[in-house]
Amino acid sequence: MSSHGWLLACVLAALAGKHFASFHPRLWGTERNCSINPPYLPVTVVHTKRRLQDLREAMTPENIAAYIIPAADAHLSEYTAPRDARIAFMTGFTGSAGTAVVTATKAVLWTDSRYWVQAERQMDCNWKLERDLSIGRISDWLLTEFPGGGRIGFDPFVFSLKTQEYYNANLAPGKLVLTSIPNLVDTIWGDRPPVPPHNLTRLPDQIIGRIWQTKVEEIRMEMMVNPYKPTALLLSALDETAWLFNLRGNDIPHNPFFYSYTLLTMNEIWLFVHIERVSEDLKAYLNSSCMESLCVQLRNYDAVRRDLQRYVEKPGVRVWVGTEYTNYALYEVIAQEKLVTSSYSPVLTTKAVKDETEKRILKNAHVRDAVAVIQLLMWLETAVPQGKETELSAAHYVNECRSKQKDSRGTSFETISASGPNAALAHYSPTNETNRKLTVDEMFLIDSGGQYLDGTTDITRTVHWGTPTAMQREAFTRVLMGNIEISRTVFPTGTKGSNMEMLARRALWEVGLNYGHGTGHGIGNYFGVHEWPVGFGSNNIPFKEGMFTSIEPGYYKDDDFGIRIEDIAVTVPAHTKYNGQNYLTFDTVSLVPYDRKLIDTSLLSAEQIQWLNRYYSTIRERMGPELDSQGLQREKEWMLHNTESFQTTAGSSGVLSSFTLSLAMLTVALLQELI
Amino acid sequence: MSSHGWLLACVLAALAGKHFASFHPRLWGTERNCSINPPYLPVTVVHTKRRLQDLREAMTPENIAAYIIPAADAHLSEYTAPRDARIAFMTGFTGSAGTAVVTATKAVLWTDSRYWVQAERQMDCNWKLERDLSIGRISDWLLTEFPGGGRIGFDPFVFSLKTQEYYNANLAPGKLVLTSIPNLVDTIWGDRPPVPPHNLTRLPDQIIGRIWQTKVEEIRMEMMVNPYKPTALLLSALDETAWLFNLRGNDIPHNPFFYSYTLLTMNEIWLFVHIERVSEDLKAYLNSSCMESLCVQLRNYDAVRRDLQRYVEKPGVRVWVGTEYTNYALYEVIAQEKLVTSSYSPVLTTKAVKDETEKRILKNAHVRDAVAVIQLLMWLETAVPQGKETELSAAHYVNECRSKQKDSRGTSFETISASGPNAALAHYSPTNETNRKLTVDEMFLIDSGGQYLDGTTDITRTVHWGTPTAMQREAFTRVLMGNIEISRTVFPTGTKGSNMEMLARRALWEVGLNYGHGTGHGIGNYFGVHEWPVGFGSNNIPFKEGMFTSIEPGYYKDDDFGIRIEDIAVTVPAHTKYNGQNYLTFDTVSLVPYDRKLIDTSLLSAEQIQWLNRYYSTIRERMGPELDSQGLQREKEWMLHNTESFQTTAGSSGVLSSFTLSLAMLTVALLQELI
Repeated sequence: MSSHGWLLACVLAALAGKHFASFHPRLWGTERNCSINPPYLPVTVVHTKRRLQDLREAMTPENIAAYIIPAADAHLSEYTAPRDARIAFMTGFTGSAGTAVVTATKAVLWTDSRYWVQAERQMDCNWKLERDLSIGRISDWLLTEFPGGGRIGFDPFVFSLKTQEYYNANLAPGKLVLTSIPNLVDTIWGDRPPVPPHNLTRLPDQIIGRIWQTKVEEIRMEMMVNPYKPTALLLSALDETAWLFNLRGNDIPHNPFFYSYTLLTMNEIWLFVHIERVSEDLKAYLNSSCMESLCVQLRNYDAVRRDLQRYVEKPGVRVWVGTEYTNYALYEVIAQEKLVTSSYSPVLTTKAVKDETEKRILKNAHVRDAVAVIQLLMWLETAVPQGKETELSAAHYVNECRSKQKDSRGTSFETISASGPNAALAHYSPTNETNRKLTVDEMFLIDSGGQYLDGTTDITRTVHWGTPTAMQREAFTRVLMGNIEISRTVFPTGTKGSNMEMLARRALWEVGLNYGHGTGHGIGNYFGVHEWPVGFGSNNIPFKEGMFTSIEPGYYKDDDFGIRIEDIAVTVPAHTKYNGQNYLTFDTVSLVPYDRKLIDTSLLSAEQIQWLNRYYSTIRERMGPELDSQGLQREKEWMLHNTESFQTTAGSSGVLSSFTLSLAMLTVALLQELI
Repeated sequence: MSSHGWLLACVLAALAGKHFASFHPRLWGTERNCSINPPYLPVTVVHTKRRLQDLREAMTPENIAAYIIPAADAHLSEYTAPRDARIAFMTGFTGSAGTAVVTATKAVLWTDSRYWVQAERQMDCNWKLERDLSIGRISDWLLTEFPGGGRIGFDPFVFSLKTQEYYNANLAPGKLVLTSIPNLVDTIWGDRPPVPPHNLTRLPDQIIGRIWQTKVEEIRMEMMVNPYKPTALLLSALDETAWLFNLRGNDIPHNPFFYSYTLLTMNEIWLFVHIERVSEDLKAYLNSSCMESLCVQLRNYDAVRRDLQRYVEKPGVRVWVGTEYTNYALYEVIAQEKLVTSSYSPVLTTKAVKDETEKRILKNAHVRDAVAVIQLLMWLETAVPQGKETELSAAHYVNECRSKQKDSRGTSFETISASGPNAALAHYSPTNETNRKLTVDEMFLIDSGGQYLDGTTDITRTVHWGTPTAMQREAFTRVLMGNIEISRTVFPTGTKGSNMEMLARRALWEVGLNYGHGTGHGIGNYFGVHEWPVGFGSNNIPFKEGMFTSIEPGYYKDDDFGIRIEDIAVTVPAHTKYNGQNYLTFDTVSLVPYDRKLIDTSLLSAEQIQWLNRYYSTIRERMGPELDSQGLQREKEWMLHNTESFQTTAGSSGVLSSFTLSLAMLTVALLQELI
């Protein structure tokens, strides 16, 4: 699933002044019109007059000229819980990317091109929409509004270090002083959703490779070898604490996380959590009744800043934080000389490399997950020509199929089920309003994934039930070539994904095509569907053996169709002719065949066809027994039919293939003469 | 020429704790032995007792615990002048990478693995050698030496911002205070070489596309569009000032630079230079008798810090500096709120894109340069079997050939002429001591370049006059595949070189081989041979049309042989099937054929053979007339013979090629039957 990739790409595009994503008004119905009197407001709008009035009243005693509301939670999570949807509460706008700024007289929302129309449908006329989401632009606006300087308020819990730094670098020269204050939206948000009441859960023993005590010792070892000699490690990202203790929650839709922080020292473990959500069993599991080095002391979630502050007041301490996921409220209480930083905490970098158990169970989850996707694709082949299926019904079907698989825990993100032009949209998920009928005349893209106790999945297939155009076939084949080129490449351990990523684009670039999102993201064992910092982006860490990533090139033709082919693969040792030390390649663990009629084998090299045939035998090997054991014979036949070998003889591109063909024809002709 | 690449790679390797470069004691004769009494010192050692004593005396009044001596000049030049060789003066060690630290009782040199043996041969026993050059290690050493804290002195003119920052980040927690003081080595260096006396020269009009006034206006335009509104631009790198005024000098071997800084404001131009070196003609050319916006005011080179300080004291001013090439002495006088930074100044990024004249003349320089290399290769073919030629005589021959070409201004770096195992060394140039005879039994690598009034060149060819081993042929072919894959790739404008660089390594990686240096560097019109920030490194800027870069993959087998294939190429528009906007590819401007006997065409794809054949026709088109006009008929025949087309039929790899071959044989057989 490429949404974060899109987000990244859009931010980059915004910075570069380009727009990859496009603007499709007709998909959204009517928008507000604030230029007439009275203004026209569609029913989808939220009325914000009173909220803004409340907020401005709260701003007065703080003596601030403006208040900044970003779309983040205190853990800088990619997806947030309803109680953190402050922008939606204040503005009505529910998109995932945006920043709101309120002054005494103005209220402005910045969002990127994916969301312009949606914002015009959801905001009333108290809010102005600005169409370029970047800290630079927001700062420019503030500098213009307050040329004489002033205080700009923000809640440091929902700012990352970098966000604070960028704003500060932009605003300070104009005498605008960023001022850290409590969250004003929370103070006026009367019916703010509470912290979910359900208890935390622990993972079952049979899917655990390392018990939490082992992980704690492993991370303490990382602390010991850090040359800056940290005495404590602060964990802020929600998956850091969840991973460390083999615990899960349910606080964010699709994401099995719970609100938490951890402060780990060499002899203590402080777990900041809503203590009332920790059962007695769990307290015993965490050994929470003591204060020794392998006892987890439970502390109140809201006490984290105060307790951290007390800790750093001690002499000789030094706290290690991963800068990417630590909020400014915690960062600012640690004096510079007591701070040890790296982009990512050692938990994130350790978690990125799966152990043998994690690898095995994550592969198993992908076998069961492939059953659901095969069921969907097989069903659609017969259902679509009957003319009754839609994007929504397809999404529903695959979600249902997944839910029947062993250890299912729901979907790992909202299913992207998109037909024809809808698939060309960056961030599309079907709604009742946009829902499109599936037909044999359009290409269909389905990007979906499941949460299972043993693993998280994410796969995209693009299909056509009728006759694709030549351009659709060529584009699909070139996207597939990108997927294959990454998958089959051999590289030394420690190569960064960003340094290989162009392999996914090269076949498209060759004919002047491209796509505007990232090429992949990490994924793991019952965690968020985007498990950073693994992936192909410039801020992702180098590949080592045992990392799982998606590989997902695409191509999108505005108002026409969209193609994406996404598989999950794991880095495995590669055996090379000259026995190079520490070389890796990818092993694809997603196990669903591609649409044959969209593959033009004449564009593929012999190596690419070989790879495809090897992949298809792997699908047969791994899926055959599973489909048998689930008693799905029709699905097995479908799978076998769709994984037949491609002929390598027709392969290879350009001159050579036509030369081969001519030779073959000549030979046949001559043979006929002879016989 | 890959020396900076090696440097980068070595720094990276040092940081990563790996060593790409290797250690070849037998090439250097004996080293010092400080563990016997009296110590054994080879004749190549410099005696430093007195110098160290002088330096320590100079340190006393400064009240510093240690003094740091880096290998840099005030312009952070890649190559430095003899008067900036402070490490060589203090330690005896003449390698290009190193840092020396002197305390009251100790003197230590850090250098990387390329130079360990050399350092042991050049330093006496007053100096200790540390084998890991990184600021982290040097800082650790200082922290261990002075656990109670203290002042650490350095000359801010020879520290970059980053160097200062890294040291400071490491030292500050240990209460070691970095203290900016005058250069102590210069105060004790009695016979320090003076600033060269020769005058600066201006480029002839016929090779100038933009007169300096146009360039000044262009850069002022860049200043105006900078959102941080700088009022001045400070130019510190020597090629910045040289480029801006179309001037050249001769202060650094192989590099046509002169000591200078420029401060450019919207209405004034201050050129800091040794004024006595500016002739009356040049003063007129620079319009230096007035103070208007297109008059160049000459100021004394040594006044730069004082004058900058006075400028920044004015209200409302803001100075733009490129952080990569500005020394800390100038940086520290600018208050933070008056500072505007980017990695590279707009002069470097503007200069990176060549105008039509610059492109044309740089291509022309490569045509003449190729004549010299063709002359060398042709001569060696007959001379080597006679057994009298050596690395040194080959280097001498090619340098002589270049010097006879029109507008020659010498070599652009010290020629790397390396036979057999010598070519496997990272940073080898032949000396009388290491000089190796050329024979038909060894591979030979020649990496050389020229300075011409119209352009700088840099090319590497690897040849074998006898029978290469299968491994040598495969490695050469795979290096060539890397060169071709980069050269023929199509990519959108704005793609970073680092994101394509793996194409140069991929064919090697596939069989477990690799190389430990960078893949290319920018190059330009009569400038340094490494014209940053263009290239394939992670800190290089994205490619736009009209940038020139080297492409230089290699492979090195310890104690055996070395292969590198280096060409210069320029980015040109690519026309794509679907008319993608702003796609680029490379046009190779180096024009010397590769050694045919080292190319195994069965490993090449059809596309690679096509590229090779197109390149060879380009060589014929461009070199034929030039060789004719120089009356070099034998060279022309040699060139024609060595640029014959390769058959595409034998091409493509694996399954396909043998299939094609069988078909072809069958066809031939059948045809014979029929006729």
